[in-house]
Amino acid sequence: MAGNKAVTYIGPGKVEVRSIGFPELVLRDGPGVHPANVGRKCEHGVILKVVATNICGSDQHMVRGRTTAPPGLVLGHEITGEVIEVGRDVEFVKPGDLCSVPFNIACGRCRMCKEGHTGVCLNVNPDRPGSAYGYVDMGGWVGGQAEYAMVPYADWNLLTFPDRDQAMEKILDLTMLSDIFPTGYHGAVTAGVTSGSTVYVAGAGPVGLAAAHSAQFLGASVVIVGDMNQARLAQARSFGCETVDLTQDATLPDQIEQILGEPEVDAAVDAVGFEARGHGAGAGEAPATVLNSIMEITRAAGKLGIPGLYVTGDPGAVDEAAKQGSLSIRIGLGWARSQTFTTGQCPVMRYHRSLMTAILHDRVQIAKAVNATAIPLDDAPQGYADFDEGVARKFVLNPHGLLPT
Amino acid sequence: MAGNKAVTYIGPGKVEVRSIGFPELVLRDGPGVHPANVGRKCEHGVILKVVATNICGSDQHMVRGRTTAPPGLVLGHEITGEVIEVGRDVEFVKPGDLCSVPFNIACGRCRMCKEGHTGVCLNVNPDRPGSAYGYVDMGGWVGGQAEYAMVPYADWNLLTFPDRDQAMEKILDLTMLSDIFPTGYHGAVTAGVTSGSTVYVAGAGPVGLAAAHSAQFLGASVVIVGDMNQARLAQARSFGCETVDLTQDATLPDQIEQILGEPEVDAAVDAVGFEARGHGAGAGEAPATVLNSIMEITRAAGKLGIPGLYVTGDPGAVDEAAKQGSLSIRIGLGWARSQTFTTGQCPVMRYHRSLMTAILHDRVQIAKAVNATAIPLDDAPQGYADFDEGVARKFVLNPHGLLPT
Amino acid sequence: MAGNKAVTYIGPGKVEVRSIGFPELVLRDGPGVHPANVGRKCEHGVILKVVATNICGSDQHMVRGRTTAPPGLVLGHEITGEVIEVGRDVEFVKPGDLCSVPFNIACGRCRMCKEGHTGVCLNVNPDRPGSAYGYVDMGGWVGGQAEYAMVPYADWNLLTFPDRDQAMEKILDLTMLSDIFPTGYHGAVTAGVTSGSTVYVAGAGPVGLAAAHSAQFLGASVVIVGDMNQARLAQARSFGCETVDLTQDATLPDQIEQILGEPEVDAAVDAVGFEARGHGAGAGEAPATVLNSIMEITRAAGKLGIPGLYVTGDPGAVDEAAKQGSLSIRIGLGWARSQTFTTGQCPVMRYHRSLMTAILHDRVQIAKAVNATAIPLDDAPQGYADFDEGVARKFVLNPHGLLPT
Amino acid sequence: MAGNKAVTYIGPGKVEVRSIGFPELVLRDGPGVHPANVGRKCEHGVILKVVATNICGSDQHMVRGRTTAPPGLVLGHEITGEVIEVGRDVEFVKPGDLCSVPFNIACGRCRMCKEGHTGVCLNVNPDRPGSAYGYVDMGGWVGGQAEYAMVPYADWNLLTFPDRDQAMEKILDLTMLSDIFPTGYHGAVTAGVTSGSTVYVAGAGPVGLAAAHSAQFLGASVVIVGDMNQARLAQARSFGCETVDLTQDATLPDQIEQILGEPEVDAAVDAVGFEARGHGAGAGEAPATVLNSIMEITRAAGKLGIPGLYVTGDPGAVDEAAKQGSLSIRIGLGWARSQTFTTGQCPVMRYHRSLMTAILHDRVQIAKAVNATAIPLDDAPQGYADFDEGVARKFVLNPHGLLPT
Repeated sequence: MAGNKAVTYIGPGKVEVRSIGFPELVLRDGPGVHPANVGRKCEHGVILKVVATNICGSDQHMVRGRTTAPPGLVLGHEITGEVIEVGRDVEFVKPGDLCSVPFNIACGRCRMCKEGHTGVCLNVNPDRPGSAYGYVDMGGWVGGQAEYAMVPYADWNLLTFPDRDQAMEKILDLTMLSDIFPTGYHGAVTAGVTSGSTVYVAGAGPVGLAAAHSAQFLGASVVIVGDMNQARLAQARSFGCETVDLTQDATLPDQIEQILGEPEVDAAVDAVGFEARGHGAGAGEAPATVLNSIMEITRAAGKLGIPGLYVTGDPGAVDEAAKQGSLSIRIGLGWARSQTFTTGQCPVMRYHRSLMTAILHDRVQIAKAVNATAIPLDDAPQGYADFDEGVARKFVLNPHGLLPT
Repeated sequence: MAGNKAVTYIGPGKVEVRSIGFPELVLRDGPGVHPANVGRKCEHGVILKVVATNICGSDQHMVRGRTTAPPGLVLGHEITGEVIEVGRDVEFVKPGDLCSVPFNIACGRCRMCKEGHTGVCLNVNPDRPGSAYGYVDMGGWVGGQAEYAMVPYADWNLLTFPDRDQAMEKILDLTMLSDIFPTGYHGAVTAGVTSGSTVYVAGAGPVGLAAAHSAQFLGASVVIVGDMNQARLAQARSFGCETVDLTQDATLPDQIEQILGEPEVDAAVDAVGFEARGHGAGAGEAPATVLNSIMEITRAAGKLGIPGLYVTGDPGAVDEAAKQGSLSIRIGLGWARSQTFTTGQCPVMRYHRSLMTAILHDRVQIAKAVNATAIPLDDAPQGYADFDEGVARKFVLNPHGLLPT
Repeated sequence: MAGNKAVTYIGPGKVEVRSIGFPELVLRDGPGVHPANVGRKCEHGVILKVVATNICGSDQHMVRGRTTAPPGLVLGHEITGEVIEVGRDVEFVKPGDLCSVPFNIACGRCRMCKEGHTGVCLNVNPDRPGSAYGYVDMGGWVGGQAEYAMVPYADWNLLTFPDRDQAMEKILDLTMLSDIFPTGYHGAVTAGVTSGSTVYVAGAGPVGLAAAHSAQFLGASVVIVGDMNQARLAQARSFGCETVDLTQDATLPDQIEQILGEPEVDAAVDAVGFEARGHGAGAGEAPATVLNSIMEITRAAGKLGIPGLYVTGDPGAVDEAAKQGSLSIRIGLGWARSQTFTTGQCPVMRYHRSLMTAILHDRVQIAKAVNATAIPLDDAPQGYADFDEGVARKFVLNPHGLLPT
Repeated sequence: MAGNKAVTYIGPGKVEVRSIGFPELVLRDGPGVHPANVGRKCEHGVILKVVATNICGSDQHMVRGRTTAPPGLVLGHEITGEVIEVGRDVEFVKPGDLCSVPFNIACGRCRMCKEGHTGVCLNVNPDRPGSAYGYVDMGGWVGGQAEYAMVPYADWNLLTFPDRDQAMEKILDLTMLSDIFPTGYHGAVTAGVTSGSTVYVAGAGPVGLAAAHSAQFLGASVVIVGDMNQARLAQARSFGCETVDLTQDATLPDQIEQILGEPEVDAAVDAVGFEARGHGAGAGEAPATVLNSIMEITRAAGKLGIPGLYVTGDPGAVDEAAKQGSLSIRIGLGWARSQTFTTGQCPVMRYHRSLMTAILHDRVQIAKAVNATAIPLDDAPQGYADFDEGVARKFVLNPHGLLPT
């Protein structure tokens, strides 16, 4: 068990697979580790042999160089693995368990955790509520795009699959439980999607597709996905969504009316966030455009689920206000329609067990919806590049060759 | 019954009490009446002898000339009165009933009404969901700052007080049921205020004070009210609120920390809206400043209730974007804290019965909290002027001299 | 329009199709009409040409002679039809509209209706909250197993299908919106069924099958239906349910464990009610057996949805207590498991619009699930007899020959 | 620290203060300890110096000899204390912290705990979900009516008071957080009590009084408490409740009508449970009488909160069915009224933090409401005897003389 290869951020546009130390039940110093977390003991943690670990759109923000992520940061917060070592304070998780790791790191002991808000745990990030593996300004927990990874507070955080063999048969679905499936589902739930709803999902990347499939699972009658990427729109259509091509001249309300017979939906999900681009060919970044457009096409008293990331600072933004995270938002429009807006990281633990059950009983096909594609760990740099190009795939790294390919 | 005096908008800064026609069970043409509503029959309506009708902060937006309200518009959407005539299709409300009128006009027959969203009824305003009496761009229903008023869909809209004499004893409290008490309560409820909450209310006008008193009634442990108007802050303290003086140099988080020992609260209410002004002496209009400041001082996973009005267009705004209703909002800050934002008109019917019961059993003292002050109908112009000056009073017009003074 | 044939209760075990008066917009005296309702004007009502009207299990309670239903009572509370005449107070429903009628009659003007509890409307039944068409002790509203029927408070009660031709293509599904589909769905919702749930439905009659299909639609991972009727169990299996044959020797927990690997489910629905029979061959009536058995197999903190009817008096019951509606219930078992029990009539309006949308977009196949079978109105007596025998069918009467057969 | 005196069950009607072993961070064998729990290590636990520990009505069930509690069982599940030793895996609780202990023991790591159902934790009681200190058939965790006690999973279970001195000033209020205040509050919440509700609480023992005060805090307009014990009714009146004397001839609906003007309330709480007695002088045990009576006086669509204990077996019951925990319940009455019933142990953690905050800010006076009375630990036998006689007091044992007396 000497080695541990891991996907490492080198600099803007560059990631490499490097050898890092084998994880221990302590958080050692390293790139991005918060001083207050250095040396933090994790007898409540476990070491996982990583079976599957996905590349996420939010990793791209770092890799594109739009954050202050330090060189050497090990990436990866979507982790599924087998427990190979447990700390002395771990009581219920056992070696050999195959588990999903929520991307939010949570202590299971603070007020937020007790109230179910594991996305804003108070005890894992010295800077502010909420944390994640392998992410800038999140406390420095080492990423999991690696052969092995350490998961703290394991009895609390881990979701153990009930049967290992059964799980391996659906591993490309189950690996989506660590982030994008619950995140998309949270977007749909907070948008108020329920039996019979008409739904618009802005963005056909993996989170958008997961939100769309979640909306179907929640009983939506029609799910419409909008994007400017033709391949991703085709992917959305492949599992029964309607689509809106935002490169067309027709306005969004008009395109929705063509599908539904009316220009508005019951519920909308913003699965894009602050890196949104303007509508129409040649448009540049327009960070509030998605939010503003979904207010317009959501009915009165409707809700907007906003899993798409908005940031508090964005040095590469198009204007000064946006650099401070302040966007020009048509709040008056939302107000006139009595809309509700729910933002923030998905608290994965709230949903992952029920979604696991749905996967295991074939009620959902999330891997197919997001076009899960396993690639070797060593191919991670190419995966990042392809994903950045906009391929309609969700890349799943395969550190130990255990995934179906 | 020949006459009917009513408070009428004449032009920017000017209202007069004029004689208008006695109401009928039909909506006749007149200033601001939507063409599609002209001649609309209201056999489901009643005529009220107005017992109390309040001046509202949102009336001020029109009177200040910041809207397209036409001269001759009869004002007033906070109405309490006695039924003196019922349409032939009214079955349960009876002449002699003393009733509160929700400011939102609702049909009781559309999807929104059936789902409890009476603030966005689909059938009363030809332009868009939601309506109100005496308000610009709301369909043209005649205002109730008058001696007599017509209320459509009376069986649905009206809340009848169980005992007339008992009600008259608390009439200055009960008159707040038509708008500001439910509106403040809605702000507190949608902010998630519950037993033990710490709460910040931005704005010490009548809605803010109503939100603060509602928060107390909902079990808040501490309610902090912020404003720049000293008299209004004193009013907030008069019923047990803590206050923050926004003309001081200390930041809002610092002032909250001085009170609570920590710089954030569980729940926040924006009772100001788009006419917000900047913090500190000499600051001008800063339409998003309240919203942005309450994101900062609300804890992670907290909720923001936003009963303060934001508009879709504001010709008198400070910049081009604001004229279109687009404000510079620190959405990234709210997102990082996983906050939820609830906007829109309060659906009064959702709350007015339970708040009436609370008033009748002395569980709340809303008239005292907002400093309800009865004045003659003829003094309405002075009332508007004084209210615009920022007096710490809620003016209640007294068209028939039935109120205690 | 002179005639109006209707299914009429004659006496225990006997129904006939008789000619009754053509409906008017008034409730005339007749069998079962409450004195306080005689002559009640219904200008808020409409006359429907009945397109489909279903036989319901609760009709059987009357026909079996276990109630005080008077001879001459016109049966039928599951009604779908075309509006042919509207009262003067009807504003939004139009002649020609094809509509579903909720079986609960509701005024749309009382506290319960305003709060969404249309199953316990305060204004339609002089005896107690709640009413229905064609039912004993429910105020005397004339049943709809007829060619024509009157529906009061039509703007409030009716659900208009958006497109007539589209609706006629799915009319056997849409006719289930008047009662059993929402009733089954309510059972599942109040049992807490959500994404991934494991569910047990007691009873494979039409309501049980509707609850089972609803549970699937709500995202259940496994739905298990229990009954003693083999044909009905086969029907449950036909759309993907697991089944438990209660005539077998194995206990219910054991049979559930064979299916799920554990002896309990997340959620359970009692779709049987007080006419339950004991488990095993030869068992007699055991009115609390279903309720007691589902407490045993529902997990801790689980919920029980109880759409199955329990009555306040049952002259034909097996013992004195049951005759008074008092049953021997293992409440201590439910208490030890912290269970919640939701009883009562389904408030159809809460659900019918969203379920209609789901039907129109092919998200559910309720007609197939309950084996909807259209028969001529004149064959109603045979339908009653067959249904009483336990055939696995839901009979839909076809008064005007408009249904596909 | 050699000694540890503790209240010990000796046999029916008899408790003594005996010396037991000083607690360790392991569960040793002893009276009532489940074999599977013997030797269970608790490095996640702490040792508390008990500051306050209350006698509970549910302790009486054991002391009266109506359970299988073994002689030697150490009693007490309402514990407040100072941390004097922490296990090596305790990370956030510190020695010196003054803490409230929820009576439900919970692991903080199972599905039920993660979903907030700490009353039915899956990992602490080998027999079934849910556990408590010092209670028969609950796994054998040692009771806390003692000088010292061990609390497992301390980071999860304990609620630390923010300031020790401030807390000691309100310690008689704060000691109610371990059980009866949250339990009463849970009863009120699950009964749907909200702003303006009219409420009936069956039983004026400490839980009933706590439910009544909670209902006031939740905004009830009128709270009516019913009992047959005059001293307890006087206690209820002392903090503003209305009362119903069940020894009177007038029926419960009649007595309620005299108070409210109508014979029903919005919400009802059963704070009695299975040891209920019949109404009127000379009546014997009637275990379902409370439940049946509150169905009758709760309005349609109302909810019943049932914190009163119902058991799965009661060897001393009045009839064979009741011995098996099966009671004769008028379920048909509840069904006709569309009522909802919520049963089970209160999950204390859901409420204790917010109620603590309310106490610390003087929003509630729970000690006064239940007439908290501190007595020396050595007087516990007399306290049990007095409480069994029905005094209107809540006894708080004072093992270290730290309480105000």
